Amino acid sequence: MAKVAIVMGSTSDWPTMQHAAQMLTDLGVEYDASVVSAHRTPDLLTEFANSAHEKGYHVIIAGAGGAAHLPGMIAAHTHLPVFGCPVKSKALSGVDSLYSIVQMPKGVAVGTLAIGEAGAANAGLLAAQVVALHNDDVREKLLAFRQKQTDTVLAAGPLELG
Amino acid sequence: MAKVAIVMGSTSDWPTMQHAAQMLTDLGVEYDASVVSAHRTPDLLTEFANSAHEKGYHVIIAGAGGAAHLPGMIAAHTHLPVFGCPVKSKALSGVDSLYSIVQMPKGVAVGTLAIGEAGAANAGLLAAQVVALHNDDVREKLLAFRQKQTDTVLAAGPLELG
Amino acid sequence: MAKVAIVMGSTSDWPTMQHAAQMLTDLGVEYDASVVSAHRTPDLLTEFANSAHEKGYHVIIAGAGGAAHLPGMIAAHTHLPVFGCPVKSKALSGVDSLYSIVQMPKGVAVGTLAIGEAGAANAGLLAAQVVALHNDDVREKLLAFRQKQTDTVLAAGPLELG
Amino acid sequence: MAKVAIVMGSTSDWPTMQHAAQMLTDLGVEYDASVVSAHRTPDLLTEFANSAHEKGYHVIIAGAGGAAHLPGMIAAHTHLPVFGCPVKSKALSGVDSLYSIVQMPKGVAVGTLAIGEAGAANAGLLAAQVVALHNDDVREKLLAFRQKQTDTVLAAGPLELG
Amino acid sequence: MAKVAIVMGSTSDWPTMQHAAQMLTDLGVEYDASVVSAHRTPDLLTEFANSAHEKGYHVIIAGAGGAAHLPGMIAAHTHLPVFGCPVKSKALSGVDSLYSIVQMPKGVAVGTLAIGEAGAANAGLLAAQVVALHNDDVREKLLAFRQKQTDTVLAAGPLELG
Amino acid sequence: MAKVAIVMGSTSDWPTMQHAAQMLTDLGVEYDASVVSAHRTPDLLTEFANSAHEKGYHVIIAGAGGAAHLPGMIAAHTHLPVFGCPVKSKALSGVDSLYSIVQMPKGVAVGTLAIGEAGAANAGLLAAQVVALHNDDVREKLLAFRQKQTDTVLAAGPLELG
Amino acid sequence: MAKVAIVMGSTSDWPTMQHAAQMLTDLGVEYDASVVSAHRTPDLLTEFANSAHEKGYHVIIAGAGGAAHLPGMIAAHTHLPVFGCPVKSKALSGVDSLYSIVQMPKGVAVGTLAIGEAGAANAGLLAAQVVALHNDDVREKLLAFRQKQTDTVLAAGPLELG
Amino acid sequence: MAKVAIVMGSTSDWPTMQHAAQMLTDLGVEYDASVVSAHRTPDLLTEFANSAHEKGYHVIIAGAGGAAHLPGMIAAHTHLPVFGCPVKSKALSGVDSLYSIVQMPKGVAVGTLAIGEAGAANAGLLAAQVVALHNDDVREKLLAFRQKQTDTVLAAGPLELG
Repeated sequence: MAKVAIVMGSTSDWPTMQHAAQMLTDLGVEYDASVVSAHRTPDLLTEFANSAHEKGYHVIIAGAGGAAHLPGMIAAHTHLPVFGCPVKSKALSGVDSLYSIVQMPKGVAVGTLAIGEAGAANAGLLAAQVVALHNDDVREKLLAFRQKQTDTVLAAGPLELG
Repeated sequence: MAKVAIVMGSTSDWPTMQHAAQMLTDLGVEYDASVVSAHRTPDLLTEFANSAHEKGYHVIIAGAGGAAHLPGMIAAHTHLPVFGCPVKSKALSGVDSLYSIVQMPKGVAVGTLAIGEAGAANAGLLAAQVVALHNDDVREKLLAFRQKQTDTVLAAGPLELG
Repeated sequence: MAKVAIVMGSTSDWPTMQHAAQMLTDLGVEYDASVVSAHRTPDLLTEFANSAHEKGYHVIIAGAGGAAHLPGMIAAHTHLPVFGCPVKSKALSGVDSLYSIVQMPKGVAVGTLAIGEAGAANAGLLAAQVVALHNDDVREKLLAFRQKQTDTVLAAGPLELG
Repeated sequence: MAKVAIVMGSTSDWPTMQHAAQMLTDLGVEYDASVVSAHRTPDLLTEFANSAHEKGYHVIIAGAGGAAHLPGMIAAHTHLPVFGCPVKSKALSGVDSLYSIVQMPKGVAVGTLAIGEAGAANAGLLAAQVVALHNDDVREKLLAFRQKQTDTVLAAGPLELG
Repeated sequence: MAKVAIVMGSTSDWPTMQHAAQMLTDLGVEYDASVVSAHRTPDLLTEFANSAHEKGYHVIIAGAGGAAHLPGMIAAHTHLPVFGCPVKSKALSGVDSLYSIVQMPKGVAVGTLAIGEAGAANAGLLAAQVVALHNDDVREKLLAFRQKQTDTVLAAGPLELG
Repeated sequence: MAKVAIVMGSTSDWPTMQHAAQMLTDLGVEYDASVVSAHRTPDLLTEFANSAHEKGYHVIIAGAGGAAHLPGMIAAHTHLPVFGCPVKSKALSGVDSLYSIVQMPKGVAVGTLAIGEAGAANAGLLAAQVVALHNDDVREKLLAFRQKQTDTVLAAGPLELG
Repeated sequence: MAKVAIVMGSTSDWPTMQHAAQMLTDLGVEYDASVVSAHRTPDLLTEFANSAHEKGYHVIIAGAGGAAHLPGMIAAHTHLPVFGCPVKSKALSGVDSLYSIVQMPKGVAVGTLAIGEAGAANAGLLAAQVVALHNDDVREKLLAFRQKQTDTVLAAGPLELG
Repeated sequence: MAKVAIVMGSTSDWPTMQHAAQMLTDLGVEYDASVVSAHRTPDLLTEFANSAHEKGYHVIIAGAGGAAHLPGMIAAHTHLPVFGCPVKSKALSGVDSLYSIVQMPKGVAVGTLAIGEAGAANAGLLAAQVVALHNDDVREKLLAFRQKQTDTVLAAGPLELG
């Protein structure tokens, strides 16, 4: 079965990136999660990205903060779709992460999600949407997930001042 | 064969979005391109997004500028992967477009590309990367495209002051 | 009597949006408040906006955060005046919400208020100002409210170092 | 009949603000347009705003650039609804105008539109939407305007590479 | 003797603006501090600014946050030098306050200080510098203040890791 | 008579800073204008600022772009009031200039004007307002200037669509 | 042996700048750390920078916040390489510090590091990299430091949901 | 003799980066300039950075725009000092380039210069300052360059209105 790889620049990104893992788990998609640092382990990055296809990954989710080079550098080494997650940074709240991930030049693409936890969860969701193109089980789970969140909103009654 | 839909909020977005079309053409992926406005034709948007799956689209590329609601609203109506292209806007140079597209809440995802032409081209590229997961012809073309742009850089000799 | 509808993308927006409700209550204007999510309940949004006029609403106040599509999409479905409230977001402090709401294209308008609680209160105030055009009771209450806040400032004596 | 007042800080704002005038004209709403500067003619501003209600205005549209105080100061002097238009500025592209207009404190409201021409046109549209609440002719024109812009989009055929 | 007026839009600005008062006190300059709201007490603003010269004020320090219209509107009504203090705002950290105060159009000037407490203290300092042009006592105190802060830095020894 | 010094970091700032010179000329205030670069002539800066008081200057206007250190460094060497003019920069449109000038730490103050020509003109105006505190001729000219710009606005008739 | 000087605008910058000191210590490079304020001790700055070369310093690390003039002004007085550290500021999170340090005009250079602690540590690292060009001991320590941080990442096992 | 390497992501960066080459030429420092793309030639990047030390380079200057990963990725592969030049980008004027280059995580450093041509020239200058630490000829040329630009400013006479 199609698998998803989740990589991040540091273990400190895991509290954010675990939301991608949780979403994939909820939607029945297998994944592996590990730390690959563009700056501290550039050779591991190259090896990881070069071998991702033959290891059976269909999508790579990469999260990083600040001068976030991980998603773009992985995309430079593979033809698999890469989804990037800007992790919220200390000084600039993730605007630096967002610009570093999304503003890729023509010819190497990263599909970028929102800053922080919601974006990480949505990276898992988007990866599952890609997997679902050829996997009916995942599509069923996706549709059920979507219906459930719709129902949750619909179940909310009128709001009143306390 | 898997097709890609390219939609945009206005014909004035076509000079930007045609770079997605060109990339798909170059990579041998079929597409349809049309105008669907979130604000001026919301019912068409709903109908388009609801029927996209059964019409055989595998990926939807949506481009818009300013308060760019098109990609997110299409994503709200379909489980197909949606890639969003922030079109450069007059006053804010596309920062408004970028934030309006990328900062989606948890539960509805848009994979966002760079502002402007490079981003549009990369949306086509990323869509082809998704198609290539199950299409060897497209994968071959992708790999050739990537090799060619690598070769172009490698062919550049040393730079000298004029 | 003219009623106002207050809608928001999530129950988590209520602590902000209740300031609109409180202002309307203080000024004697009836309202209904409910959750309508552009992304999670797009069909409810369409139905709500399409029927708002015949249900007797004169103004719609819509609050949302991040890629805040709710106010603009409601405006796309109705000719009633829509006032938008950017809810403060986690990473970008509501700048994303503000740009997503205010930067509407020509032809579909949203009158946008300040980010956060003050803006929500002012959305209630502005809605009451519209209602007051044809309702003397509300105008009286408006004038009294304005006079009272003027008097509060005037009552403040000189400030001194402690 | 309900009239709308359009004011702006300088004659140099007219190329922007005339789009509000044009929209009102198209929708059959009467208006007066004039220059009122918060900084250069503060007494005129006070007089204008204080007398706007008795002169029969129902809505005031105010446009200004830079440290754009005009909309907020007019709102400080009247209980009529005020819609503010941030005019694009030289150095900061209208971000200064936008923040100066939209970030009003609780208790005095300005419904703010987009930066530049589109926002000015939409201020006219929103004003007409307020007038239309009690004027069937204007509502008819509004609905026709909306239908026409929808039809224009629907009439656009598929887009093709040249 | 020359006096300075300190005004602010709300009593909630006093924790910031008291740093101006403290600086003036330290430098031996008399001042009066009070609340004058551009939006909630526009008539008081006009009266205050119009009469400031004849009341013996030589400089006016005005602090406000958000759409901070107070300094600019006071400057519109007087030929006395006006120094503006952007108070830190909730959502935008005072960038809105700064732009609203500093980006004045040609013909009405506000000398703007830094966002927050340091800026308020410096408004007091700058006002004292103006007063000192014709007051030797204040100049002496200014020079002593400057020397003292220089000495404080010079007294700091080398820094070492703990 | 009180004189004003205008300094700027480069002759390329003169097209901006001459608006300060013109305003001072119009208001009958003497000035000297010269190039003093914080980075290229730091010793000249020190000498200039240290001797400014004894040379009879009452106000120093300093304009610079980018990492604009000139106004703040002059203020570090003198107790005269310093007004800073952010010159519009190539990449960042003067936001860098503005932040570098206005965000001074507590203890050394720069009264900052708007980015670009309007700010430079207003620096001249503000300097004249300081001079006018003890010079009736300048005050008369100031009042006449203000009245004239008010009259210019008042003379503008209603605006009409062409 | 080549020494490094660490200077900062205030003792309150030490919690940030000590990370530069720690890095230099870890890499076996001698340093002196002290407070030199561009605004409060401009003469000390001049003296320090003018004599830095003859005192045996090879690199100067300068940290400051807000309108951070220290790094640029030191660079104006010496031909030694200067590395600048933007300290996180209260209102603007260090964006003001960053722009004030990095946007130097042609002819006087400051190599700028990231905002806050990571940037300060990297200033120490970069200084050691310069020293290492002619010092094998430092180069050995650098290589060992780099290897160690690579090993730390490689040692991290797969990440799993708790 | 110590050499400097200038690399850039694309030949389109040469009009900016040639200012680094010119400065090095003027200061008598040898350099090689070539195109190395982080995204299109990642293997070339690795090979280049890994062999830079043994090829005799002492400093690497890297320029790139948008999601500018080149400087940081080169720094990840070498212990030589790396100076980064943010090239001005189309939509975001180089703010994206600046953040992507300067906001490096602790442990891998890039000394960043200003956006655009001035920053590129200063990268050449800073590299020469590093070389000059152990090369008297370059130091002489540096001092002469600095003196010359000081003299140019000093030679400028007083500025006068035309």
